[in-house]
Amino acid sequence: MGERPAVVTFTTDYGTRDAFVAVCKGVVLTAAASAQIVDVTHEVPPGDILRGARVLAEAAPYFARAVHLAVVDPGVGTARRAVALGTQDGSALVGPDNGLLMAAALRLGGVRTAVSVERAASAVSRTFHGRDIFAPAAARLAVGTPVERLGPGIDPDSLVVLAPPVRELGEGSVRVAVTAVDSFGNVQLALSWQELVTSGVLPPGAGRPEGPTAAAELRLPDGRTVLVPAAGTFGDVAAGSLAIMEDSAGRVQLAVTGGRASEGLALSEGSTVILRERPL
Amino acid sequence: MGERPAVVTFTTDYGTRDAFVAVCKGVVLTAAASAQIVDVTHEVPPGDILRGARVLAEAAPYFARAVHLAVVDPGVGTARRAVALGTQDGSALVGPDNGLLMAAALRLGGVRTAVSVERAASAVSRTFHGRDIFAPAAARLAVGTPVERLGPGIDPDSLVVLAPPVRELGEGSVRVAVTAVDSFGNVQLALSWQELVTSGVLPPGAGRPEGPTAAAELRLPDGRTVLVPAAGTFGDVAAGSLAIMEDSAGRVQLAVTGGRASEGLALSEGSTVILRERPL
Amino acid sequence: MGERPAVVTFTTDYGTRDAFVAVCKGVVLTAAASAQIVDVTHEVPPGDILRGARVLAEAAPYFARAVHLAVVDPGVGTARRAVALGTQDGSALVGPDNGLLMAAALRLGGVRTAVSVERAASAVSRTFHGRDIFAPAAARLAVGTPVERLGPGIDPDSLVVLAPPVRELGEGSVRVAVTAVDSFGNVQLALSWQELVTSGVLPPGAGRPEGPTAAAELRLPDGRTVLVPAAGTFGDVAAGSLAIMEDSAGRVQLAVTGGRASEGLALSEGSTVILRERPL
Repeated sequence: MGERPAVVTFTTDYGTRDAFVAVCKGVVLTAAASAQIVDVTHEVPPGDILRGARVLAEAAPYFARAVHLAVVDPGVGTARRAVALGTQDGSALVGPDNGLLMAAALRLGGVRTAVSVERAASAVSRTFHGRDIFAPAAARLAVGTPVERLGPGIDPDSLVVLAPPVRELGEGSVRVAVTAVDSFGNVQLALSWQELVTSGVLPPGAGRPEGPTAAAELRLPDGRTVLVPAAGTFGDVAAGSLAIMEDSAGRVQLAVTGGRASEGLALSEGSTVILRERPL
Repeated sequence: MGERPAVVTFTTDYGTRDAFVAVCKGVVLTAAASAQIVDVTHEVPPGDILRGARVLAEAAPYFARAVHLAVVDPGVGTARRAVALGTQDGSALVGPDNGLLMAAALRLGGVRTAVSVERAASAVSRTFHGRDIFAPAAARLAVGTPVERLGPGIDPDSLVVLAPPVRELGEGSVRVAVTAVDSFGNVQLALSWQELVTSGVLPPGAGRPEGPTAAAELRLPDGRTVLVPAAGTFGDVAAGSLAIMEDSAGRVQLAVTGGRASEGLALSEGSTVILRERPL
Repeated sequence: MGERPAVVTFTTDYGTRDAFVAVCKGVVLTAAASAQIVDVTHEVPPGDILRGARVLAEAAPYFARAVHLAVVDPGVGTARRAVALGTQDGSALVGPDNGLLMAAALRLGGVRTAVSVERAASAVSRTFHGRDIFAPAAARLAVGTPVERLGPGIDPDSLVVLAPPVRELGEGSVRVAVTAVDSFGNVQLALSWQELVTSGVLPPGAGRPEGPTAAAELRLPDGRTVLVPAAGTFGDVAAGSLAIMEDSAGRVQLAVTGGRASEGLALSEGSTVILRERPL
């Protein structure tokens, strides 16, 4: 990791009421005193691998060659593997082999090397692998140990990958899953803004400052249909009004200026919506 | 910032469930590896500039020459300016020009210099200026770049200032806003203890260990009137009893020992109360 | 503290919505710029000394010679003492003398030295000793000042100790308190797994991979009686099923795989349960 202090990011479903998070940080800092630990979130809903994977994948690319420690692990104590992954950009990921790490690995250039970081069962509890397996492995990476030295290599193609979200892109119509509802109630879809335009749901330039006025038809899971105008940003839309816009990562989001789109639309993570071309 | 690692404090309404906070920290640490980032809070209610301003102003004076990064920004993507402020005490503040930074600036000696930190629109999303504008500016300050070098100067008198809270101080009576309800349910008023005494609502020395027994009449927004004894600290009051006392910042607070004053009194931020002299 | 940056852990009931936590961190970092502050939790329920003591005691042993700053202090402003404790393992604890620090002190080898860290009343608010007394003391320890230099020595035997939880261990039956419900809803009892076996409630080897099939009878506070099978880990139990198992600290816990044991059993911290031998 060179001269700069190693950053260790930390993502879990442990919550912040108990000692779990601090225990893992103590383990990391005891073995890697100069590591700088940055919390991504500890509020992943318990066992929600999909959500943990998404939040980690959003945060990881903004750190330079960091160690990403992540534990959302409903299978703790079962046969699922514990792994460390080296990625093409020189970062590393540590956690259970249940799909949690793979979206982030892709964002970091893909898996370059994968190893198993199991330890002798005698040294390991059956319920707290964050403390006993993953934090010690992250600490070794933070002090510069190469991923390859952490355990026996495994085939990257054998790593567990999560099922991708629903994405059916047609001509003038798309059917896609809600991938996230953020803390402002904005609803993120499994679709890039570019794809929305390419599929013909919105005309080129829609949502741009000089672009055409445009809107799409949104069909909700409860059967309601809503006309949603395209906007460039919250400031373009009257308070309380729904709009479809590009989010800060280039994806499509549904948002209500000064309100919570998720509530009015009754959408949550995993919901599926249909967007259709609607000439004005 | 000399030899000591630069402290960057961080205040937002992003919450801690999503990746927003970590993304901004990654941006800061990538450009300023030795910065020490300290969270003030990320639980400002969405878009509540007034509350963000207050919490930041309470925390900032306790840091020595820090960079204070703050983003509560309901106007993101509109014409509101993005600014960096240098203060008289050598600290810096970075955030939207919507009033969020000004109470803290005052507590740090006032604005010495103000610059605009806009970036070319091509490099900037329209919804996540924390990542694209404010965090990069904070990182430049953290590595020692002078505020003046971050962008074109602007007139400090043109900076947006929030409307002050209601404060009507009379003879033997004051009408003041509730500025805060803290997590213990203590109710903080827009009034110093000294002002409460000067206005004649309480006699000199009230609430001091050797002071006189005293009480004030509290008129609530719902029309109820309550007699509230003055106390010096929680230990002076029976459990469950309401008292008026000086808080740790020298302001007036209403508190219930071992309870939540805000609930019994049905007060929240922005409520207005009247306190009157009530000779015992 | 030698060459490594001093770690200061921080445990409070302040919550993270207000400026309290950041204010204390500012005080520490202003006096001890290279200190590394690690949050244990700030979500201790207000005034819940017992819970604060438990979480601190769980986290503290995983840090090497750290300074542990803890403030859960319903008696702030009363005659309760403010103390710093040096422990046998070279760590230090700072906080109110109300029992909060003592479980952690035991886990760190016991109290080696105890001093009072009161300050002249003129420099101290009556409601925010975290800022005015405890954080400054922690900062002095973080820069290497010996505990003995922080104030006049006091007799360790005079330190306040919390009443221990209910623990009645009989032959084939135990009556014990619930010491914790974690964020997953797992219910931790005031009993080690070893004690459960020694008391004859479960046979030797129960819950081990090669151990015998076994179950215990659980009598709940509401009079219900439930048969609870022993398991080694969550993976051994069908989803939604209750089991009794050893937790990561060697204690007995009641857990539901993929669910919340605390809800189905209606147990919370302080509840008392009876476990009885139940031959299969």
